[in-house]
Amino acid sequence: MTEHLRSELVKIKREDTELTVTCPDAGPVAIEAAYDEALAVPPTLKLVQKADEQGYDAAIIACFSDPGIEAAKEIANILVVGIQEAALHVAAMLGAKFTILTPMRQRIPHKYREVRRYKMEQALASVRALDMSVTETDADPEGTKKRILEVSRQAAEQDGAEVIILGCAGMVGYAEDVTRELGLVVLDPSSVALKICEGMVDAKLMHSKRALFAKPPAKEYKGMK
Amino acid sequence: MTEHLRSELVKIKREDTELTVTCPDAGPVAIEAAYDEALAVPPTLKLVQKADEQGYDAAIIACFSDPGIEAAKEIANILVVGIQEAALHVAAMLGAKFTILTPMRQRIPHKYREVRRYKMEQALASVRALDMSVTETDADPEGTKKRILEVSRQAAEQDGAEVIILGCAGMVGYAEDVTRELGLVVLDPSSVALKICEGMVDAKLMHSKRALFAKPPAKEYKGMK
Amino acid sequence: MTEHLRSELVKIKREDTELTVTCPDAGPVAIEAAYDEALAVPPTLKLVQKADEQGYDAAIIACFSDPGIEAAKEIANILVVGIQEAALHVAAMLGAKFTILTPMRQRIPHKYREVRRYKMEQALASVRALDMSVTETDADPEGTKKRILEVSRQAAEQDGAEVIILGCAGMVGYAEDVTRELGLVVLDPSSVALKICEGMVDAKLMHSKRALFAKPPAKEYKGMK
Amino acid sequence: MTEHLRSELVKIKREDTELTVTCPDAGPVAIEAAYDEALAVPPTLKLVQKADEQGYDAAIIACFSDPGIEAAKEIANILVVGIQEAALHVAAMLGAKFTILTPMRQRIPHKYREVRRYKMEQALASVRALDMSVTETDADPEGTKKRILEVSRQAAEQDGAEVIILGCAGMVGYAEDVTRELGLVVLDPSSVALKICEGMVDAKLMHSKRALFAKPPAKEYKGMK
Amino acid sequence: MTEHLRSELVKIKREDTELTVTCPDAGPVAIEAAYDEALAVPPTLKLVQKADEQGYDAAIIACFSDPGIEAAKEIANILVVGIQEAALHVAAMLGAKFTILTPMRQRIPHKYREVRRYKMEQALASVRALDMSVTETDADPEGTKKRILEVSRQAAEQDGAEVIILGCAGMVGYAEDVTRELGLVVLDPSSVALKICEGMVDAKLMHSKRALFAKPPAKEYKGMK
Amino acid sequence: MTEHLRSELVKIKREDTELTVTCPDAGPVAIEAAYDEALAVPPTLKLVQKADEQGYDAAIIACFSDPGIEAAKEIANILVVGIQEAALHVAAMLGAKFTILTPMRQRIPHKYREVRRYKMEQALASVRALDMSVTETDADPEGTKKRILEVSRQAAEQDGAEVIILGCAGMVGYAEDVTRELGLVVLDPSSVALKICEGMVDAKLMHSKRALFAKPPAKEYKGMK
Repeated sequence: MTEHLRSELVKIKREDTELTVTCPDAGPVAIEAAYDEALAVPPTLKLVQKADEQGYDAAIIACFSDPGIEAAKEIANILVVGIQEAALHVAAMLGAKFTILTPMRQRIPHKYREVRRYKMEQALASVRALDMSVTETDADPEGTKKRILEVSRQAAEQDGAEVIILGCAGMVGYAEDVTRELGLVVLDPSSVALKICEGMVDAKLMHSKRALFAKPPAKEYKGMK
Repeated sequence: MTEHLRSELVKIKREDTELTVTCPDAGPVAIEAAYDEALAVPPTLKLVQKADEQGYDAAIIACFSDPGIEAAKEIANILVVGIQEAALHVAAMLGAKFTILTPMRQRIPHKYREVRRYKMEQALASVRALDMSVTETDADPEGTKKRILEVSRQAAEQDGAEVIILGCAGMVGYAEDVTRELGLVVLDPSSVALKICEGMVDAKLMHSKRALFAKPPAKEYKGMK
Repeated sequence: MTEHLRSELVKIKREDTELTVTCPDAGPVAIEAAYDEALAVPPTLKLVQKADEQGYDAAIIACFSDPGIEAAKEIANILVVGIQEAALHVAAMLGAKFTILTPMRQRIPHKYREVRRYKMEQALASVRALDMSVTETDADPEGTKKRILEVSRQAAEQDGAEVIILGCAGMVGYAEDVTRELGLVVLDPSSVALKICEGMVDAKLMHSKRALFAKPPAKEYKGMK
Repeated sequence: MTEHLRSELVKIKREDTELTVTCPDAGPVAIEAAYDEALAVPPTLKLVQKADEQGYDAAIIACFSDPGIEAAKEIANILVVGIQEAALHVAAMLGAKFTILTPMRQRIPHKYREVRRYKMEQALASVRALDMSVTETDADPEGTKKRILEVSRQAAEQDGAEVIILGCAGMVGYAEDVTRELGLVVLDPSSVALKICEGMVDAKLMHSKRALFAKPPAKEYKGMK
Repeated sequence: MTEHLRSELVKIKREDTELTVTCPDAGPVAIEAAYDEALAVPPTLKLVQKADEQGYDAAIIACFSDPGIEAAKEIANILVVGIQEAALHVAAMLGAKFTILTPMRQRIPHKYREVRRYKMEQALASVRALDMSVTETDADPEGTKKRILEVSRQAAEQDGAEVIILGCAGMVGYAEDVTRELGLVVLDPSSVALKICEGMVDAKLMHSKRALFAKPPAKEYKGMK
Repeated sequence: MTEHLRSELVKIKREDTELTVTCPDAGPVAIEAAYDEALAVPPTLKLVQKADEQGYDAAIIACFSDPGIEAAKEIANILVVGIQEAALHVAAMLGAKFTILTPMRQRIPHKYREVRRYKMEQALASVRALDMSVTETDADPEGTKKRILEVSRQAAEQDGAEVIILGCAGMVGYAEDVTRELGLVVLDPSSVALKICEGMVDAKLMHSKRALFAKPPAKEYKGMK
C-alpha cells in the first residue's frame, strides 16, 4: 500500500519536489475504527516529528481519516496537511456538493462526524458505502469499477453530488467512467493533498501556532521514551 | 488528583454503587493538548478493556476532553460515559445556555471543537478562560474562587449563560458563590457523569453497537502486545 | 393510562424513591394537537405547583410533547423534567443519530419543531409514523410490534438511526426485537426521565432561575382562582 | 392598551378593511412569562374561534410572543397571523439583520427561543433590553425615547442590526430619531402584521391544513364547556 | 410573457394601485443560468432607476431568481421587492416547510443557493424539477398540470412540504388540484410579491440604507453612459 | 493596480507558469457595491471567455468579491478560481477561525453574505473594517500598517481569529508584524489563489459541469454582440 501510494504520487509531484512516502512500523495494519486510529496515532506522530527534524517543508498524513492531525499540527514546526481536509476544501470549490465513498456501511456515521469536524457539512451531499471490504476491492477490479459507477450515480441523482471523493486508497484508478458518464469530478485525496501542499509550501504558508495548534506545554510523559 | 476525585465521588455515589477510581500508569501527567490526549488514549483504553473484563457495568472517562471516548465505546461491551458529554447534555436541560470554564486561554478553540463534536454548539454561550494554570489554581484558592466568580459573571452578563460547566478538576469546590450571587447553576462534570451513569445502568441502557461504536474488525496490531 | 404508567415506573424506580403518578382532572383525554396541549397545560401546571408545595424533590411531565414545560420550570422551586427532553439528550449519547416514532403521520412536522425547541436537530435522524392511532395500537399488539420493527428498520437503513425513541406510551413493550434484530437502542422516555431525574435530584441539580425560567412577576390573573 | 392598539391600527388600515380589536376577558393582565402565556392562550383561542364563526377573513394575535399561534391555526378555518412572525419575515427583507427590543433583560433568552421557533435566527442580530418595565416606559416618555435610541445604536454598531423590531407595545411612537440618526428601519409588529394580513387575504392565502396546522381530532375535553 | 404577467397582476392588484409591467429591451430572452442573469442585470437596473425617477413607490423584480436585487436596493430610493424573497417569507408563515418547483433538473443546486442567500434554508423542504422546459410547459398544458400534481405529491409525501412555490411563470394556473387533492398551499411568487408590496408601501416601509443596501460611492464607470 | 498585482504574482508564480494579468476595459474603476459588481461582471466574463479561447489552463478572477464567478464557471471550459473562495478554504485549514479585513465598515454585511455563499460561515471569526478608504491606505502606509495590526489584534483577542484574510489589494505588504506579534497567519488572496490554481491545473482538476456550473442553454441575447 505504501509502495502503491508512492508510485502514484511520484507521477504527479513537481520535479523539484523531494518526496518520501513512509509508514509507521507499529500499529494496526489497516484503519477501520476509532480504536485503530487511537493506536495508529502515536507512531504516526513520531514520523511527523522526524520529518520536522529532518528539514522537510511539510508532512502529509495520507490516511483518509486524518488520524492525529491536530496533535501533529501542534508538535510540528512545519506545515502538516491531512488528505481529507485538503480533499473536502478542494471539492467544495468544484461543484455544488460532494459525496464521500467509503468501503463499509458501518463507517458512514464516522465519516459524517469527520466532515463536521472540518465544518464542511453544508457542502456534503452524502456519504455512501461500496459495501465491499478492502480485500474485496483488491480481488475484484471489474466489480469495484462497476460498483463505484453505480454508487456515484446514486450520489448524483439522489443526493445532488457533483464531486466524488474516493475515501479509500483501494478505490483509486476507476474514476474515468464516473466523470465521462455522469459529469462528476472525482478526487483522489492523496493526489489533491500533495498538489495543494506544494502550493502552500511555495506560498510559505503555515498553520497558526497561536492557540488551536499551539505547542503543548512541556511535561513528563510517563512510561514513554 | 486521582485520590481527590475518588474522595469527591465517594461522597455522592449511591450506597449500592461499587466505585473504582483509577489512573493509567503511562502517558502524560496532565492533558493540555491534542498531543497529550493522543498519548493518553492507548493506556486509557486498556483500563476500559479491563473494566469490561472484570464485570463492571460501566466505565466513566474522567478527563474533561473525553479522550478516546469513541474508541472506548467501540471496544467495550459495557456502557462508557464521558464526563464532558454528560455535562453538556445535563447543562442543556437546566438553562438557556451554558459556558465552559477552562484554565488557559490557548485551549478555547479546542473546547469549541469538542462541543461541536457533541453537536451541542447551539446551547453553548461561550468558552471562557480563568487564565490560571492548574498549578496556580492549586496554589491560590482565594484567587481561584474570585476569578471563577468574575468569569462566571462575564459569562452570564455578556454571553447569556445560565449554567457554568467547570472544565477542569482544579475548579471544583468554589461554586457556591456563583450560584448564590448570580443565580447560575454550576456543574462538576465528574459528579454529573457518575449520577447520570448510575441512572443509565439502572435503566439497562447501552450505546448502540450498530455502526458508530461497532466493534473494530479483527486485525493485526503490529508492535503491540 | 395513568395506571399503566405507574405500574411501569414502579418496576424501575429506586427503592428509596417515593413516586406519585397522577393526572389532571380537566383537559383533553389525549394530546394530539397544539390545541390539546394548550388546554392541557393550565391544569398540568396546577399539579406541578401542588407537587412543589407538598415537598416533592422533582416533577416529571410525562407526556412526550412536554406540555407546559417552560411555564412549569418558571413557577416551580423544584426540578422539573420533561420526558422528551430527557430522552433526546440521553439518545444523543447512545448512538450517531436517533429517530422518533410517532403514531400518526400528521404530527411529524410538530415533532420536528419540538426537537428544534430543544436544539437537538443535529442528532435527529428522522421522525417516522406508525400510521396507527392509539386505539389501533391498543387493539392489535401483534400488528403494532410488527409495525414498530418495520419502521425502525427504515429509520436505521434509510436515515442512519442508531437509537429509537418511542414517542407514545402505546408503543412501550415491543422493543426487544428492534434491539436484537437491528442493533438499535430503544428508549422509553418516561423510564429514561425517571432514572435521569433520580440522579439529578441526588446531585442536587436544579434548573437556573436567572432568566429563561425566572419566576413570573406577580400580577392579576383575571377570571382565575 | 386594547384601546390604544385600536386607535393606532385604525389609522393605517385600508378603508375597506373591517377591523375589530378585542381582548380576552380572562387571563393575566400582562404577558411577561411562559406561565402568563399558558394562562392567556385558552381564552385567546376562544376569541379566534369566535372570529372564525363570525365570518372574519383573518385573525391577528397582537401580543409579540404570538401566544397560542399554532393552536389557533389548527382550529381556525381562516387565516391566522402572529405579529411576531409577520415582523420577523418583513424585517428579514429590509436589511442585513434585525434586533428585537424587549423591556426586561430577563426575557432575552425567551425571545431567542421564539426567533428559533420561526427558524429566523440567521437573520437575527441580537435581542436587547431597555431595562425598563412597561410601567416605567409609560411614566417616562422622554427617558424611553432616549433609551430606545441608545439601545438601537448599540444594536447597529455592535451587532450589525439594520432593522429594529419593537417587541412591546409601550415602545411604539419613538421611532423617528432611530431612523433619522442611525439609518435603521423600525418596525411596529402590529402595524406590519395588519398590512401583511390585508395583502394575504386579498391573495386568498391560507395556511396549509395538511399536517402542522391540521384540525385536531375530535375528542372529549374534560371539565371544559 | 410580460403581457401575460400584466394581465394576471391587474386582476389582483388593489384598485388604487397604479401598476406598470415592463421588460428590459436588452439581455437574454430567458433566464436559465447565472450567465443569463449577469447579462440581464444591467438593463434591469436601468428600469429600476427609471421607476425611482418617475416617482413610483416601489419596484418589483419579477423573475424568480431575483436578478440584481441587491444592486437595485442599493441604487433605489424606493422600496424594491424580489418575487422570490417575498414568496419564501410568506411560504414560511403558511406551513411547516415549502418546496420550490423549477422547470429543469439542472437548475436545482442554483435554487438551493438562492434559498441560502435569503437564509431560509431551514424552512425549505426541497427543490424539485418538472423536467419540462418552458417550451414544453407552453405546448402541453394537460401534461404540465399532471406533472405539477405529481411532483407536488412527492414534495408533500417524501419531503414534508406543505407549501409549493411555483418557481416559473409557465407553471401558474394549475394550482387548484394541488390544493384540493393534497391540502397544499400553492404560491405564485409574482402575485404574492405584489400584495406584500402594496402592504409595505402603505406602511411606508423601506429597506435600510445603512450598510448592506447603502448607496454606492460615486465613481467613474468606464465605457458606460 | 493591475500593474501592481502583476508584479506581486510574478514573484511567486512557478517558473513554468505563463501568467497574464489583465483588466476589463469597461466598468467601474473600483468595486465597492453590488451595483459596481453588476456592471463589472459582463466585461469580466468576456475576458474569461477570451482566456478560454486562447488556450489558458485556468482563469483567476482577482477581485475579492469574486464577481461573476458562477457565470464564469458556467461559460468556461477551463478551470475558474475566485480569489475569495481559494482564500476561505485555505484559511480554514490553517487555524481555528479566520477574520476578513475590509476597508470600509459599510461593506461588512456584504462580506458576511459572501462567506455564507461559500458555506464557510462556521469557520469565520469576524469581518472587521479598517475604516480607511483605498485612497487613504494608499496615502498613509504607516497608518495603514498600524491599523492592520490593531484590527488584527482585536480579531484575535475578541473573535478568536487565528488567520487574517486581507480583503483588499491595498492591504497587502503589511503582514509581517501581524504574524510576528500575534502569531496569526496572514493571507493575500491573490497569491493564495495563484498557488492553489497551479496545483489544481497540475492535478487536471476542473469544476463539474453537471448542474450548478452547466453551460447555459443557447439563446438569443438581445442588444448584445
